[in-house]
Amino acid sequence: MQKKYLMTPGPTPVPAEVLLAQAKPMIHHRTPEFNAVVRNSVEGLKYVFETTESDILIFSCSGTGAMESSIVNCFCAGDEILIAINGKFGQRMQLIAEAYGLEASVLEYGWQEVVDPRDIAAHLAAHPQTRGVVITQSETSSGVLNDVEAVGKIVREYPDCILIIDSITGIGAVECKTDEWGLDVVMTGSQKGLMLPPGLAAVSVSPKAWRAYERSTLPKYYFDWKKYLKSLGQDTTPFTPAVSLMIGLDVSLKMMREEGIDNVIARHSRLAEATRQGVEALGLELFAPAEGRGSAVTPVWVPEGIDGKELVKIMKNKHGVTIAGGQDEYTGRIIRIGHLGYFDDFDIIVTLSALEMALTELGYEFEPGSGIKAAESVLMA
Amino acid sequence: MQKKYLMTPGPTPVPAEVLLAQAKPMIHHRTPEFNAVVRNSVEGLKYVFETTESDILIFSCSGTGAMESSIVNCFCAGDEILIAINGKFGQRMQLIAEAYGLEASVLEYGWQEVVDPRDIAAHLAAHPQTRGVVITQSETSSGVLNDVEAVGKIVREYPDCILIIDSITGIGAVECKTDEWGLDVVMTGSQKGLMLPPGLAAVSVSPKAWRAYERSTLPKYYFDWKKYLKSLGQDTTPFTPAVSLMIGLDVSLKMMREEGIDNVIARHSRLAEATRQGVEALGLELFAPAEGRGSAVTPVWVPEGIDGKELVKIMKNKHGVTIAGGQDEYTGRIIRIGHLGYFDDFDIIVTLSALEMALTELGYEFEPGSGIKAAESVLMA
Repeated sequence: MQKKYLMTPGPTPVPAEVLLAQAKPMIHHRTPEFNAVVRNSVEGLKYVFETTESDILIFSCSGTGAMESSIVNCFCAGDEILIAINGKFGQRMQLIAEAYGLEASVLEYGWQEVVDPRDIAAHLAAHPQTRGVVITQSETSSGVLNDVEAVGKIVREYPDCILIIDSITGIGAVECKTDEWGLDVVMTGSQKGLMLPPGLAAVSVSPKAWRAYERSTLPKYYFDWKKYLKSLGQDTTPFTPAVSLMIGLDVSLKMMREEGIDNVIARHSRLAEATRQGVEALGLELFAPAEGRGSAVTPVWVPEGIDGKELVKIMKNKHGVTIAGGQDEYTGRIIRIGHLGYFDDFDIIVTLSALEMALTELGYEFEPGSGIKAAESVLMA
Repeated sequence: MQKKYLMTPGPTPVPAEVLLAQAKPMIHHRTPEFNAVVRNSVEGLKYVFETTESDILIFSCSGTGAMESSIVNCFCAGDEILIAINGKFGQRMQLIAEAYGLEASVLEYGWQEVVDPRDIAAHLAAHPQTRGVVITQSETSSGVLNDVEAVGKIVREYPDCILIIDSITGIGAVECKTDEWGLDVVMTGSQKGLMLPPGLAAVSVSPKAWRAYERSTLPKYYFDWKKYLKSLGQDTTPFTPAVSLMIGLDVSLKMMREEGIDNVIARHSRLAEATRQGVEALGLELFAPAEGRGSAVTPVWVPEGIDGKELVKIMKNKHGVTIAGGQDEYTGRIIRIGHLGYFDDFDIIVTLSALEMALTELGYEFEPGSGIKAAESVLMA
């Protein structure tokens, strides 16, 4: 017998209460019972997104579907947009924009760099016809946190330019004040901070984004926002939704409301700090720069002479702790420890302990227990 | 305490084995464990779709997403296609085709008519440039079964024209011999014959359909078939899939293989016949014409002087049996009894009994028990 710990930045562990809610007998989606699920979920998501001004739309798809929806609902082919990229998921937004014939300018940064809002301001000043700015709040590939609040201040000065935030691993892990910061479109996926299995995505749409919608001519049907808005008026969805996942969402959002969104975010911040102090105490180096570290995932350089893939494999197969490896050019060179969603102090302790044991097994030299000691001191504070 | 019976044509009841499989702790999708789930699911779906020649792609979305995928992956804007429509879901295909700028010719039939394959042959002879024929095998809105085998024989004579089958409530309920009948694209949704919650859809793609893909220029990303095909080579999916639903799919497909696809279809045929004989014995009239009745759902005219919405409500609220009402112009005028997926003899008996009691309560005159008697005689045969 070996317990399993899922320490990846998505899918993330699902609370037993949520798992079991999804195992209830199936109900039909055109019923008052399910209308209540939709109504509660939208209200709960508004609370989590910190918005009263935006509409919240829920799609049965993974996060990439929500990303695509933001492009096809807000723009026309040939529109100029600006995409700030400092990781894998910013790149995906570029691929989607290009698939739909947008003229995407790219501000490209290294995966270890934070997007500089001044670069966005300079681009918009030089290209005031820009119709949209796209930025990833929390880059899952690198752990970097971009300052979307600062970007919001810049973009709100341009009445015909909307700000699209990929907050797929941001929502529920870091502050994301949709209204206050002027974020026009914010998206997340169910298998992240919302503590659900994958299969649902949520998007917030501001009044400014609805104006962009009215102008948009890109073809769409399944992801057509207006269809979802119209159905929301009757607490339903235009197409058969993922009923069991929606029922789970209702439960997980209740858990988040009970804890309180500020406490949820404070917990993530504390667990991230414990993880960072723990790995640094082992002599390992953090991947993300000090000026922009998110609370969803902690990427760490694999020490010289150690095979990162082997490290992940030992932690999973020998110790039952699944962490993520690096992506693209960082495959085998970094590990990524997720602490996004349903995590508490001892999940971090377990992971650091498994990391200590696996590193020892691979011949890395350090003071055993030092990572745990550093983490404990953060967790006790 | 009141037991609940879900007798709708989707969502359909989910076996407890499948519900509980989905309640297992979350696993990551980039693991050998999940690769096995993908591999098994694709194999199981090939068995159910009766294909060895087509690829099977699985999407995290509802059936409408799969419908959209068939349009955006096979055509260019301006392409001429032919859509045969005899119900609500044929109409949806037309809306999708129009959203993407196709030139859709429509063969329109009444909801109580079966599509005549000769009309399709005549249209193709007159318009040999037609790039695709779209037809709903089993119309959920009307219960009508169209003869897609006959249509397959016609379309296979046109090397540049593909045949797209909406078999969302066909697969697992009626025969659908993808290879033998020359069906290029066949689609289904998880919450139908596959006995799962909604949230997944599967599409089969023939070599001829892949040639259409190569020519297609419509924009796409989340539903881009080639991305899914490429990932299938590594037993995975391009984007995070609905992991818990996929794990459920693995279990439900095993159940279908154990029963055997021919037995699954024979069971549906028997339950549909029992339902039909049962309602006719009550003096009610079937909605679908004798020459084209599917096994997924039995729509029935509500007798003169009875309010169909009230009938559905009494069956649900008083007796715990949820059936569907009519859609669009048939709202309140027909009821639809689903028997698609996880159903056995006594589900039909229960439904007919609830129908008898609700009809009595609404003042309809008939011989109580006569519906049950007629159904029993079919079930005993």
